[in-house]
Amino acid sequence: MTEELDVLGIGNAIVDVITQADETVLHAQNIVKGGMMLIDEARAAHLYSVMGPATMVSGGSAANTLVGIASFGGKAGYIGKVKNDALGKHFAHDIKASQVEYFTKAAQDGPATACCYIFVTPDGERTMNTYLGASQNLCVDDIDETIVASAKVTYLEGYLWDPAEAKKAFRKAADIAHAKGRQVALTLSDSFCVDRYRDEFLELMKSDTLDLVFANESELYALYQTSDFATAIEALRQDVKLGIITKGEQGCVMVSSKGITAAPASKINSLVDTTGAGDLFAAGFLHGYTQGYELQACANFGALAAAHIIQKIGARPEVNLKELAEQNKAA
Amino acid sequence: MTEELDVLGIGNAIVDVITQADETVLHAQNIVKGGMMLIDEARAAHLYSVMGPATMVSGGSAANTLVGIASFGGKAGYIGKVKNDALGKHFAHDIKASQVEYFTKAAQDGPATACCYIFVTPDGERTMNTYLGASQNLCVDDIDETIVASAKVTYLEGYLWDPAEAKKAFRKAADIAHAKGRQVALTLSDSFCVDRYRDEFLELMKSDTLDLVFANESELYALYQTSDFATAIEALRQDVKLGIITKGEQGCVMVSSKGITAAPASKINSLVDTTGAGDLFAAGFLHGYTQGYELQACANFGALAAAHIIQKIGARPEVNLKELAEQNKAA
Repeated sequence: MTEELDVLGIGNAIVDVITQADETVLHAQNIVKGGMMLIDEARAAHLYSVMGPATMVSGGSAANTLVGIASFGGKAGYIGKVKNDALGKHFAHDIKASQVEYFTKAAQDGPATACCYIFVTPDGERTMNTYLGASQNLCVDDIDETIVASAKVTYLEGYLWDPAEAKKAFRKAADIAHAKGRQVALTLSDSFCVDRYRDEFLELMKSDTLDLVFANESELYALYQTSDFATAIEALRQDVKLGIITKGEQGCVMVSSKGITAAPASKINSLVDTTGAGDLFAAGFLHGYTQGYELQACANFGALAAAHIIQKIGARPEVNLKELAEQNKAA
Repeated sequence: MTEELDVLGIGNAIVDVITQADETVLHAQNIVKGGMMLIDEARAAHLYSVMGPATMVSGGSAANTLVGIASFGGKAGYIGKVKNDALGKHFAHDIKASQVEYFTKAAQDGPATACCYIFVTPDGERTMNTYLGASQNLCVDDIDETIVASAKVTYLEGYLWDPAEAKKAFRKAADIAHAKGRQVALTLSDSFCVDRYRDEFLELMKSDTLDLVFANESELYALYQTSDFATAIEALRQDVKLGIITKGEQGCVMVSSKGITAAPASKINSLVDTTGAGDLFAAGFLHGYTQGYELQACANFGALAAAHIIQKIGARPEVNLKELAEQNKAA
């Protein structure tokens, strides 16, 4: 590990178990559509027993983002904890095979590798039920100073705020990065997650622990407890150097001290599964950002990657995003 | 288990690990494109280490067929061996969640659940490398007389001829079925498999151990060691009551003492992954056959299911085939 990384991601290392389901299944299981709920082992076993046939693919929000960055040709690294079990080995295989440097040792005992049970409804919306398992044992010892120091941007998940030890690892990474003049980015992850940690997220922003914040509209509204976009955007502009708000098919809005600008979404043919839309938007954006592109170009990379990912099942790209970007430029 | 089954499948219970790869990967690993190769544990570990990010989905030729039959609304059962490990549990989950009755106890020790490492090239062709693992421990004790007796058709994989004990289970099942006036079907599975067991397969046919035989063109040519279709078809007609030969986009040919008839393939928009094409053709055909349809209608059900499966990754249907058939009828 001597080379510089463009982006280092730190997050919950999760394998996704994805099924197609109609809304009656969500109702019957008391699942709130569209969000991410944390579940315990017993609930995980129950949901698995009632869910339909499922595809297993590596997931994890930040991990998806770093795989996207590597697919764009960026130098990507990842820190996140699995167990040394079949799913943990598969997670490690996939992220390494995606050309992401993976730095975290697997746990030899304790809970199983994290699983996210995802129900995709006919409208393409995904609803996630996450058993954190081994991922919550990520701790400060997993944060290597040399690695964090080598990354232009360290990218963190809001979801990391759920496991207590991971939160400490998160702060350690941010401290190292800033001590080395690097930047720190956070995705707010999920509106329920924002509800759980609103004050802490605002404190991270106001204290300049974060340089970039990614959020979608509902996360932004949850953060500022408003449903007025202009109010929320202005508050965000005061609180962070660069805020990027995704708005689905309406594209995104970027706010900084220099002003507020918008960029469009990319066209799609058919919506299949929204899993990973935000993760891959962040991938494209951060790829552009670490390559020195203007904000508009960063947003365009993000839109392109997000459009690809929602036209297939699962949150890992099936094409080379660098080639896709070149084709798009040529078109 | 009191109800009658339409079809009982017996096969190697396998989880597919599917990646997209270009042909240079196949060359570099000395893999013969388009076929199914048996590999040992060391080779499996090696191929996994060099393969790209992969999707894990339940597979197994006969298992795919039975899931297809259940999706058409047929009463389906399956016998095949997994280990009591994470992949084995996932296989069992998926087949049960697909409304297929699954009768086989998982092995508590011995080799891991079988995996098939599948490389899908840009032309949509799939190349399979199978580690048989726990599946090869299927034995005569796994064949319950009551279950076989309850099935209108018992459907067997040629692949079952690879593990020695499974071969005995195969013969036991065929004997029970015929003693109860039921029918027995075999898919020849793969031309390399036919090369390995040509004489035995011909003996099964000539001795009326089999009532129906499914094959594609290359399997048929391998069986009769000819490359002349008319010659092969006439030989098949002498050897089995009903032979069904699939010819890819050219549809299929059905041969029996009554004569030779052809049926067309269904139209597709784009070829993604041919994995499961033969399995799902057999599903549609056997569904029609056990519901008393004429041969042409059976072939149409088969063509419809095959067309669906090759337009997606993996060999398990993502739509309800009964509804698809009804839409197709209405169209």
